[in-house]
Amino acid sequence: MNAYLQERRKLIDEDRAQRVDTLRTQSLSPVEQHAEEIVRKIRIAEAASVWNANGTDIFDYKPDNASPNLFPGMAFLTGIEFRINSPKGARDISVHTKLFKILSKMPKGGLLHAHLGATADARKLLEISLTQPTVHIATSGTLTPQDLQKALPEFKVLPPTYLSSLESIADKTYVKGEYVPLQKARETFPSELGGTEGFDNWIVNSLQINPAEAYGSHNTTTKVWSKFTSVSAISEVLLGFMPIWREYVREFFRSSIADGMSYVEPRVFFWHKFMTGADGLANVPHREWLIVYEGVMNDIVEELKEQGRQNALVGSKIIYTTMRFDTMKELEWHFENCIALKQEFPHLIAGFDLVGHEDTLKPLLEHVQPLLKFQERQVELGLEIPLLLHAGETLGDGTDADMNLYDAILLGTKRIGHGYSLVKHPKLMEICKTKQIALEVCPISNEVLRLTTAMPMHPLPIMMNHGIPLVLSSDDPAAWGCTGLTYDFYQVLVSSEISGLITMGELARNSLKYSCLSQQEKERALELYEKQWGDFVNWVVQEYTTDGEFKA
Amino acid sequence: MNAYLQERRKLIDEDRAQRVDTLRTQSLSPVEQHAEEIVRKIRIAEAASVWNANGTDIFDYKPDNASPNLFPGMAFLTGIEFRINSPKGARDISVHTKLFKILSKMPKGGLLHAHLGATADARKLLEISLTQPTVHIATSGTLTPQDLQKALPEFKVLPPTYLSSLESIADKTYVKGEYVPLQKARETFPSELGGTEGFDNWIVNSLQINPAEAYGSHNTTTKVWSKFTSVSAISEVLLGFMPIWREYVREFFRSSIADGMSYVEPRVFFWHKFMTGADGLANVPHREWLIVYEGVMNDIVEELKEQGRQNALVGSKIIYTTMRFDTMKELEWHFENCIALKQEFPHLIAGFDLVGHEDTLKPLLEHVQPLLKFQERQVELGLEIPLLLHAGETLGDGTDADMNLYDAILLGTKRIGHGYSLVKHPKLMEICKTKQIALEVCPISNEVLRLTTAMPMHPLPIMMNHGIPLVLSSDDPAAWGCTGLTYDFYQVLVSSEISGLITMGELARNSLKYSCLSQQEKERALELYEKQWGDFVNWVVQEYTTDGEFKA
Repeated sequence: MNAYLQERRKLIDEDRAQRVDTLRTQSLSPVEQHAEEIVRKIRIAEAASVWNANGTDIFDYKPDNASPNLFPGMAFLTGIEFRINSPKGARDISVHTKLFKILSKMPKGGLLHAHLGATADARKLLEISLTQPTVHIATSGTLTPQDLQKALPEFKVLPPTYLSSLESIADKTYVKGEYVPLQKARETFPSELGGTEGFDNWIVNSLQINPAEAYGSHNTTTKVWSKFTSVSAISEVLLGFMPIWREYVREFFRSSIADGMSYVEPRVFFWHKFMTGADGLANVPHREWLIVYEGVMNDIVEELKEQGRQNALVGSKIIYTTMRFDTMKELEWHFENCIALKQEFPHLIAGFDLVGHEDTLKPLLEHVQPLLKFQERQVELGLEIPLLLHAGETLGDGTDADMNLYDAILLGTKRIGHGYSLVKHPKLMEICKTKQIALEVCPISNEVLRLTTAMPMHPLPIMMNHGIPLVLSSDDPAAWGCTGLTYDFYQVLVSSEISGLITMGELARNSLKYSCLSQQEKERALELYEKQWGDFVNWVVQEYTTDGEFKA
Repeated sequence: MNAYLQERRKLIDEDRAQRVDTLRTQSLSPVEQHAEEIVRKIRIAEAASVWNANGTDIFDYKPDNASPNLFPGMAFLTGIEFRINSPKGARDISVHTKLFKILSKMPKGGLLHAHLGATADARKLLEISLTQPTVHIATSGTLTPQDLQKALPEFKVLPPTYLSSLESIADKTYVKGEYVPLQKARETFPSELGGTEGFDNWIVNSLQINPAEAYGSHNTTTKVWSKFTSVSAISEVLLGFMPIWREYVREFFRSSIADGMSYVEPRVFFWHKFMTGADGLANVPHREWLIVYEGVMNDIVEELKEQGRQNALVGSKIIYTTMRFDTMKELEWHFENCIALKQEFPHLIAGFDLVGHEDTLKPLLEHVQPLLKFQERQVELGLEIPLLLHAGETLGDGTDADMNLYDAILLGTKRIGHGYSLVKHPKLMEICKTKQIALEVCPISNEVLRLTTAMPMHPLPIMMNHGIPLVLSSDDPAAWGCTGLTYDFYQVLVSSEISGLITMGELARNSLKYSCLSQQEKERALELYEKQWGDFVNWVVQEYTTDGEFKA
């Protein structure tokens, strides 16, 4: 039996040899070892006390068993109406756990896959918009208690000279499609629709995917993407107004830093050629966006200095994105535009990506020729704008969206956005390992957008054990009512018995290692990370007893 | 661009080189090529016409979109109450498709993973039971229209001399827990409970996992296993009565052959030492079970001969199973018992397995020592009883159930039951390929038992592309209201763009290749398969036009 156990240990070690945490777990400091043990104990305790994973005896079937279907890594959103007996989702339960509190303190490193327009809280976006008198609202729906949730708001920024004679969006005199000042529409929202609170909820609902949709009426990837596309279209108008965008960017930086990120590399949507300026005219060009972005970043750096936290942020770069339905001509315009921006702001432009729902939009194969030209042009100009392509964000097996992985890799993508279906491709997995192409894995996004039903079904452990380089990211957290990376780390940590706190730290380090920071910036960022990590594990062991209890 | 496309083709080929269908698809006969094209055309047409996969435009979100959430490979059971807008599951829709009709005609090869007690239709089991006057029924539930579904039937075989004075199980005089003859209980079932039809539905409901449970109240693996365990416990009493068992085995053979199987290797549950005989006494030992089993098989062979179809069945062997909660002493008894049966019926005993819910029952590690002894004992006796162990039927990552894979492989298992979590283990995948350890993959079982929500999320394509040897199987089809393998093949075929009819044929060949047939039997079975396959592809091209339409 001893020989058997030795052979078993050897086999397990060989099987796990490629994991990101293998090396580090062999040389932990006593404090790291202690923090790791505390977290593992808390996870076991909370699996039983919070998630009640084993609350059912398989030999004790009761036809009317109404105990909730809770388990670690369960669906993220609240699902009272759509998951029988599941009153709350992981989002609303996890925040009350010790594990969440610990992870929220953990330094996260970089944010490598997030669409800027869906990173800050929807209520915050509304709040910012309400400060802008030129923001107007219309609807073509019927605003009655029965039909409110079916009506979609439509925003528009009108010139300061525009005078609306309409007082309310919800009274009988309202003409469908006519614009009312946002602030006024809110103030006059009738009490039978919930007054100002009802108004806010109505707007936020249009800016988020709701559990009713994710788990009920829109419970397929294509259908839930239609809601997601609607969310984007509604927020796009608000975020296309420079005064709002500026404050949204500020909020993005603040909430990211508060969540422990020291570097952010958001995808910014340059599809519209101009933003609307304070004058109500669509005349703010892309170079101004970058100037404003950098200005906000500098403000934030100043804020941090004043707080004595100048090392909390090492910087930010932007990934230029446009859509997968652009015509060839539009695409060529974007390439030239991206090149021009890179020439003017070499430190700000991190790379290039094409976004949108892969299952239904044009495959990468149709973009190969122009992308190859784009790369030739960079060589001519002595520039380097890495591709950071979305690929394989799909359940398809051999569909165009799945096949996008071949093209992303052949085109030399630096990282892969999602790469959810990569595990179906042994040769591509090998290439990702050899060429160190990291996947940007977005666990909660994948679940809400119905690629997986819950974290235990997510292919992440497959990727981890096969040694695929990867980082965790949040994609569009505002669309599911949260900000930051803590929730994604939480869902991953509770769904595995192999991964622990040390693993989470290694994933955070990966997010700096695989970022578009220069070699020198990267070294500094990783050095600062080690300091933050040291403080963090010290905090864990100071805060909790060996048994995972709060110290008095 | 041409160079790019060439390189792309090369990369795709390398990526798919390990697939089971790679070699064969390079040398198809014209008829096979034609049949393959027909099936691919039908799949595309039915994805749109039946499954409506792309029925939603992602740019056209409607808050009240009530179009059904149908898609190829969707949940198997009817889900009217629990999947909003999904009135029917894959089981009830697929039977109306051309693809299903084609697959139902396809020769399936062998059945390598099915628990005998859940292979034949629940209504058939009831029908057989009704012919036996000694079968009685009781309930401790309340039989009113409101509470009927919460009441579970309890069966018992009573000696022929037993006289029940009770006339009905549902009237006011009924004393809870008292036994009434089954036939009488059915005849007197009150009309407000649906009369005899209501009775039948009540019983069938207790013998199947219902959509309400699978997708609603019991929507986690552990909870749905409690229902599954209840189903097994109820049917176990009926199947523990030899006159019923005999007819059930007959039904199993008939329905398997009707579904195109030529070999069946069911797992038989030898946990109870005796069955109840016609005399009502629990005195029928295991050797008699095997004699009856073989007798039924011989009857079937005679039936087939009379029909001129003597080649439809090449044989059957049995996998001896007991439970993962047996004590060490009980286990040792089973090993000796299994050896004795193998010595008496060397041609009938295929191997040995331990069954039950891996997530909650004892891990294989605790069985290692006795299993090693069992193997030593076989060497002493010059016997060979291969292990065919369940392992990795779990969503766990590093849990005991997931770790069972290490032990199954170290113990030299010939195949792996399920191996659902194998894809998380690079080293074990390598070993399965080198040592040709096949996975017995049960797609629908995995979905109903909530390891996956639908086929597109199942790890099967990962296994296929990585070249893991595998077969498709049905596990416990009676528990989800079907028989045969066609449904499993259907769910797999519609969920991939890579796999086609040829792939399905190769998987069927695998089921003979990885069976426990002797080398000689295997060669004969595979030879017969080629004949059946030839007839089948000829039938496909005769029945359908190149466009996948029925020929007039």
